[in-house]
Amino acid sequence: MTFQAKFYSLIFAFVLFLGIDIQAQDEQNQDALQIKTIYDLALTESKGYDWLYDLTNEVGGRLAGSPEGAAAVEYGRQIMNTLNFDTVYLQPCYAPHWERGDKEVVRVAQSAIGSFELTALALGNSVGTGDQGLVGEVIEVRSLDELRNLDDNYVKGKIVFFNRAFDNTQIHTFRAYGGAVDQRVRGPLVASQKGAIAAVVRSMTNKIDDNPHTGTTGRDDAIRPIPAVAISTLDAEELSRALKMGPASIYIRTTCIMHEEPVLTYNVVGEIKGKTNPDEIILVGGHLDSWDVGGGAHDDGTGCVHSLMVIELLEKINYEPNRTLRCVLFMNEENGLAGGRAYWEASYAAEEFHMAAIESDRGGFTPRGFSVDGHKDIFSEKYKQVYDWLPLLEPYGLTFEKGGSGADIGGLKDQKGLLFGFMPDSQRYFDYHHTTIDHIEAVNKRELEMGAASMTALVWLLDKYGIR
Amino acid sequence: MTFQAKFYSLIFAFVLFLGIDIQAQDEQNQDALQIKTIYDLALTESKGYDWLYDLTNEVGGRLAGSPEGAAAVEYGRQIMNTLNFDTVYLQPCYAPHWERGDKEVVRVAQSAIGSFELTALALGNSVGTGDQGLVGEVIEVRSLDELRNLDDNYVKGKIVFFNRAFDNTQIHTFRAYGGAVDQRVRGPLVASQKGAIAAVVRSMTNKIDDNPHTGTTGRDDAIRPIPAVAISTLDAEELSRALKMGPASIYIRTTCIMHEEPVLTYNVVGEIKGKTNPDEIILVGGHLDSWDVGGGAHDDGTGCVHSLMVIELLEKINYEPNRTLRCVLFMNEENGLAGGRAYWEASYAAEEFHMAAIESDRGGFTPRGFSVDGHKDIFSEKYKQVYDWLPLLEPYGLTFEKGGSGADIGGLKDQKGLLFGFMPDSQRYFDYHHTTIDHIEAVNKRELEMGAASMTALVWLLDKYGIR
Repeated sequence: MTFQAKFYSLIFAFVLFLGIDIQAQDEQNQDALQIKTIYDLALTESKGYDWLYDLTNEVGGRLAGSPEGAAAVEYGRQIMNTLNFDTVYLQPCYAPHWERGDKEVVRVAQSAIGSFELTALALGNSVGTGDQGLVGEVIEVRSLDELRNLDDNYVKGKIVFFNRAFDNTQIHTFRAYGGAVDQRVRGPLVASQKGAIAAVVRSMTNKIDDNPHTGTTGRDDAIRPIPAVAISTLDAEELSRALKMGPASIYIRTTCIMHEEPVLTYNVVGEIKGKTNPDEIILVGGHLDSWDVGGGAHDDGTGCVHSLMVIELLEKINYEPNRTLRCVLFMNEENGLAGGRAYWEASYAAEEFHMAAIESDRGGFTPRGFSVDGHKDIFSEKYKQVYDWLPLLEPYGLTFEKGGSGADIGGLKDQKGLLFGFMPDSQRYFDYHHTTIDHIEAVNKRELEMGAASMTALVWLLDKYGIR
Repeated sequence: MTFQAKFYSLIFAFVLFLGIDIQAQDEQNQDALQIKTIYDLALTESKGYDWLYDLTNEVGGRLAGSPEGAAAVEYGRQIMNTLNFDTVYLQPCYAPHWERGDKEVVRVAQSAIGSFELTALALGNSVGTGDQGLVGEVIEVRSLDELRNLDDNYVKGKIVFFNRAFDNTQIHTFRAYGGAVDQRVRGPLVASQKGAIAAVVRSMTNKIDDNPHTGTTGRDDAIRPIPAVAISTLDAEELSRALKMGPASIYIRTTCIMHEEPVLTYNVVGEIKGKTNPDEIILVGGHLDSWDVGGGAHDDGTGCVHSLMVIELLEKINYEPNRTLRCVLFMNEENGLAGGRAYWEASYAAEEFHMAAIESDRGGFTPRGFSVDGHKDIFSEKYKQVYDWLPLLEPYGLTFEKGGSGADIGGLKDQKGLLFGFMPDSQRYFDYHHTTIDHIEAVNKRELEMGAASMTALVWLLDKYGIR
């Protein structure tokens, strides 16, 4: 090549490079506009908040296996039928059938500061005390290990009080929850193994208040179940104060029933078949069941509504997906995960590939981003591709971080797609989680809408670009 | 130099470079630890939430010039006296003296859909209708320009209804506020100029609900003031619906009084003299006054408490500042800015230099960062220095962005320091702003504490490193 030829080819390459760059820039601007439109529509035209109102007020608390749980399935299907799904169907699963029974009575019968009531809720899946109730001396512990190190004879016949507080220095409140929740999930089992007759657990919350927080407790065929209740943090502090001054005994009456037979119930699934890559599935979901107390607003009505709104918003921008979009309202996340398991089983049996799955199960607060998880063989490479979209999402206060996704989609990891957990601001979540006050009033309409817009934007990017 | 000498000096330079790098890394780690300690203490040991409880409940709504305003001054001083200030003093200023008078009566007297009550609050600084009230036909407009373009004879003797809603597609709700608030501030003046007898303004909020939002309306010596009220957004929608069907008239009765004489009141100021650079002032502040309705919790009890907590937290880490720290609780931000003006005047007269000033006046929600402002001669260079600290603040969800700081500190710009506005999540702010429900219940303790920790971290960095 002559010098001139070289020079011109250099110029040509440079112009080509500029051209590609301008094209990429154009594309990014187009993407930014599309995402802005999604947010605009979410904040002005969505029906999401009304859906949440109905789900939390008309249906109400909706434990798997309860009549309200069945009503929620029907309500979910009705909403899906108003959206542009190709198919809407119910996916059967068998959930444990637990009933709370009468209002719990928990009372300090005797202590250095007298007798007083404790505001309490039985733990989900726990057994009742029987009609007469039971009474026993209380032992306070701060950890399972502290209990394990006690002499069995000392624990035998007593009531174990688990009183380790949330670590409030954790900025992400879910980490504080993770650091305390073994007391509720495993505590009563360990107490039973040590010979205790019942367990009382400090509620899982950052707040000091008089709201007890229910939640599931573990079952183990090899361990005799004992009655187990959560008491409010205010009462936990008061009981602990009493115990510093001398022995105390507690009376507990719960009439919970864990039925022998599981109950037939359903995930609600809606699907839009992909135009060009129908075998690559993008899932959005939350869980439809909630605890029986409260309205299940932040846990997880907002997650269901977010997921439905993704489809609503894509419809509003007339988007026809390349990949198969599936919206799943999972049943029985709270006390068994039967819905999640049934979904995974069917999916692996059909040799499906979930290119991506997004679960919203951390409340409906202002969005902060997504946690991203995946099989170790593919994670770093696929994460990098998604991370490149960040400039499009940062204007909405979003970020990506590595971390767990959601209970209902975790089992899809071996399909080697990416799993996302929607991550809203976490500061208020454990003010409401599993309580009687988790109602629509605790959900801000705009925050709900912005969450749905964030998920829709991510789904739209996933569908447009795919993940290699 | 021989080759060997060159080689060794190269090695030497490299080792030196590594050393400096390690030292910088060490310093950054130390800083990160210090900032973590600040957050830990804020989230576990601060008295801030109790202060806010007292300010909003014991003192309550506290308009400048009212007895509650005076009580707030005394309460602010009391708290400052419990902290390690070198000096605490009151800085006098003269505020307008406005009183709301009787509960407002605003009613659609006649319309196509009958007669109905409108939930309303008189606008601050507005005049009353007199005891008898007034009645007039309503004209609905969406903007000041729309009103200006109407024929004076058409407007004369009527009541102008300003009904432009917030633009809910604005992610930052303060932008939506900025795009609507001219209706409240200037609207009644323009209406008066056109011959209207009163003005009714749609409340400044994103929400559709039945809470009216008060707020200041402009005064102009050249323009005859007319009665002006804000009605709830629900009522604004209903009134607008009625007007689409035919003419409507409204009855308004307010007994507000704007007294001739301003009232002597005070900023509350606490100061810690700097050890090494006492002439470089770092200010933290919020405004102590609030509207008379509600408890002035998010506006701006949280800003005052944030600022006091900065001093509390620096005390907890035994920090002796290099620069002079000043905590200022400004009076009369809401309806006159007399406190801010008095402060600026005294500061320029004393030839002071505010190296940095931080105002918190956007609520006590989860912190998202700081807006940064400054004189154009110095802004880009100084902003860059501060921006370099971002890696230390990002783990707490904070960012810096260019933008206005706060009404009470804006006048300090000519001193050529940096001005910061604390920037919490804005989604819920206008649910409460200037309403009867802006109470402690709307403030989350952890969110308040994280806000104070964010401000303290910034103050600590500003004091440690300075801004050149």
